[in-house]
Amino acid sequence: MAQKTKGLYGGVRSFISALCCPKCGKEYDHLKIQHICECGGPLLAVYDMPQAGKHLSPELLKERPPNLWRYRELLPVLDAANIVSLGEGFTPLTPLPRLEERYGFGSLYLKDEGVIPTGTFKARGAAVGISKAKELGVRHIAMPTNGNAGAAWAAYAARAEIEAHIVMPEAAPLITRTECAAAGAKVLMVKGLISDCGKIIARAIASRGWYDASTLKEPYRIEGKKTMGYEIAEQLGWKIPDVIAYPTGGGVGIIGIYKALCEMRTLGWIGEKFPRLVAVQAEGCAPIVRAFEKNAGKSEFFPDSKTVAFGINVPKAFGDFLVLDGLYKTAGTAVSVTDGEIIESLKELASAEGEFVCPEGAAAFAGIKKLRAQNWIRADESVVLLNTGAGIKYPHTLNFDIPFCSLDGNI
Amino acid sequence: MAQKTKGLYGGVRSFISALCCPKCGKEYDHLKIQHICECGGPLLAVYDMPQAGKHLSPELLKERPPNLWRYRELLPVLDAANIVSLGEGFTPLTPLPRLEERYGFGSLYLKDEGVIPTGTFKARGAAVGISKAKELGVRHIAMPTNGNAGAAWAAYAARAEIEAHIVMPEAAPLITRTECAAAGAKVLMVKGLISDCGKIIARAIASRGWYDASTLKEPYRIEGKKTMGYEIAEQLGWKIPDVIAYPTGGGVGIIGIYKALCEMRTLGWIGEKFPRLVAVQAEGCAPIVRAFEKNAGKSEFFPDSKTVAFGINVPKAFGDFLVLDGLYKTAGTAVSVTDGEIIESLKELASAEGEFVCPEGAAAFAGIKKLRAQNWIRADESVVLLNTGAGIKYPHTLNFDIPFCSLDGNI
Repeated sequence: MAQKTKGLYGGVRSFISALCCPKCGKEYDHLKIQHICECGGPLLAVYDMPQAGKHLSPELLKERPPNLWRYRELLPVLDAANIVSLGEGFTPLTPLPRLEERYGFGSLYLKDEGVIPTGTFKARGAAVGISKAKELGVRHIAMPTNGNAGAAWAAYAARAEIEAHIVMPEAAPLITRTECAAAGAKVLMVKGLISDCGKIIARAIASRGWYDASTLKEPYRIEGKKTMGYEIAEQLGWKIPDVIAYPTGGGVGIIGIYKALCEMRTLGWIGEKFPRLVAVQAEGCAPIVRAFEKNAGKSEFFPDSKTVAFGINVPKAFGDFLVLDGLYKTAGTAVSVTDGEIIESLKELASAEGEFVCPEGAAAFAGIKKLRAQNWIRADESVVLLNTGAGIKYPHTLNFDIPFCSLDGNI
Repeated sequence: MAQKTKGLYGGVRSFISALCCPKCGKEYDHLKIQHICECGGPLLAVYDMPQAGKHLSPELLKERPPNLWRYRELLPVLDAANIVSLGEGFTPLTPLPRLEERYGFGSLYLKDEGVIPTGTFKARGAAVGISKAKELGVRHIAMPTNGNAGAAWAAYAARAEIEAHIVMPEAAPLITRTECAAAGAKVLMVKGLISDCGKIIARAIASRGWYDASTLKEPYRIEGKKTMGYEIAEQLGWKIPDVIAYPTGGGVGIIGIYKALCEMRTLGWIGEKFPRLVAVQAEGCAPIVRAFEKNAGKSEFFPDSKTVAFGINVPKAFGDFLVLDGLYKTAGTAVSVTDGEIIESLKELASAEGEFVCPEGAAAFAGIKKLRAQNWIRADESVVLLNTGAGIKYPHTLNFDIPFCSLDGNI
């Protein structure tokens, strides 16, 4: 395996130099296992950007395989032998010409994260997170999950020969439980919410010393997610769009994209102007939208949250302040949509463009339609919409009455 | 849309020159709608290979986007404006190092067709088939399906603004019905088999003049499927493997890969030696295996067929003679596996490699283990295994009893 990946990534190195807390600025050694800052903040990876820029360029990228490891200088894995990959990344950026015309966007693209191993964008965080955990000698990871993250981490952990301990609400989708169990993870269900699962995991980590793979409790999941930002820029020929809309639960995707934009600007790969980032939430769970409307720096717990888009049912995100910072710094916004709008948008994407997306992706589309109607997105503007997962993972979101035809029937 | 795709494919043309019946050799005009030969055989696309070879080379391919349209000179669509794409193709070719070691293969790779729009390899045939139908001015397509092909053709038809008429057995997976209906296709269910659906479709085509998109009843689906063969060669640096194993139902995948091998040899991109092609079937539906064992040129209808791998439950394939020809010409073989072996192989791929495949992909793996045990595949040989779809499309194939943890429980 080591030899094989060397062929793909040989002669290429990571320029990670440290981990840094965005809250208090304290630095940590990336050669050791680290979780969160002593101030309680998450840790972000820092790179030697001048050196990275000398070794990697948009021109060089053209020679590399179409997966997220093409940005390896800007990813944290030091030794290529530790890369655990199922071929994730470089997902399609697909034009939506009919919807572009219907709603009068300058241009409209869907970044389709359904076309990735495990069927959701969680594969990116898991690929990089597990690779780095392997590099650090981790033998056991533990995490709570609403389903898709657990499925992705379980798959990559199996490939890395790391034992995964996963706790999920009983309401998590059946398929994600099956994915975890098939991968050989130790899975448990809880009659409760993801926050209840988190408490069980926290106790287990304290008593057993397992590696905490919860959202932003290790610094590398976000490094995997940020590659979505690099890919959007690369796929658009390094011309960034006016708006990027993201369905926002834990928010790691939007934080990652914002981090990628900052890095690409430092590298001189894109100009000074950033896309306006849009966090789309469900009306039944909109803590970021509420905080944004008050111009607040962090969100409040959103009680009794409920939405058909299970993946963005996160009443209080650990990284909320980073999401909000990204929205403010890019002159972006936050918008909420109803479950009815989500379902309508899901059907519209399928019937108009052949894109069968997950409910979260449909929420993002519903959000930009609203912003276009308000002229917050103008008629000449270019928009990239993130679909975070494959519609095929959600067999029960849409229900159709399919009629029967008799054997001798005519149609 | 036309302008946008021009950017990607501009200056590139198709070198299709005719359609030809492999049974009787009669040629047909590719500028007109064609279905099957008057002798009853399927029609295959023929290209001006010397010209194609002048315009396309392995070196030039490096500059192109990672989807199947990179082989456009060898695909049938004349005008780039007619390309209907969701970003399909160039799926991962993933090493399986632990299983390679466990069973003693020289090398072992999985070509993962789960990482594609709609989650199965059917997207390739649908993308090329629908694009060409659009080019030919088709307004209505009709087809019987066991599920995944219908889902894929419905999605691409929606994108092409073509009306799709689809009939499927009531036993077809729920998610595929939902995909068809969401895409706006006219879907009907039948209390019967796919052969019953085929009869209903045949009557409708006769009375209404719809375009017959059934397997091998139009010449272009196979052109999409053949790109799997091109990709395997390109991804291995134009060094072909010793063995390619394919789960075989209708057989279009294996016919397509064999066609690609012949074309690549003509182009001089690969040498004279071909990989040995292996058709893997379920014991409950093994018409090709039975025919191969008798050294027959075609298969007999396999009565009362039954297998957990629904996608290869095809008791009599229209293209059986082409599948068998590919096996004979490459010194390949055909092998059947039990449902129990399929389920065990599914679990083994997930737990050893993190690859959650569809039952058909698991069957292919079960097949090569058997051939390795018989030393038909030798210890130093390289093997590529086709996984035709994502495991996440099959939420009920594996069943695990997941235990509960109480809210105050410790793990």
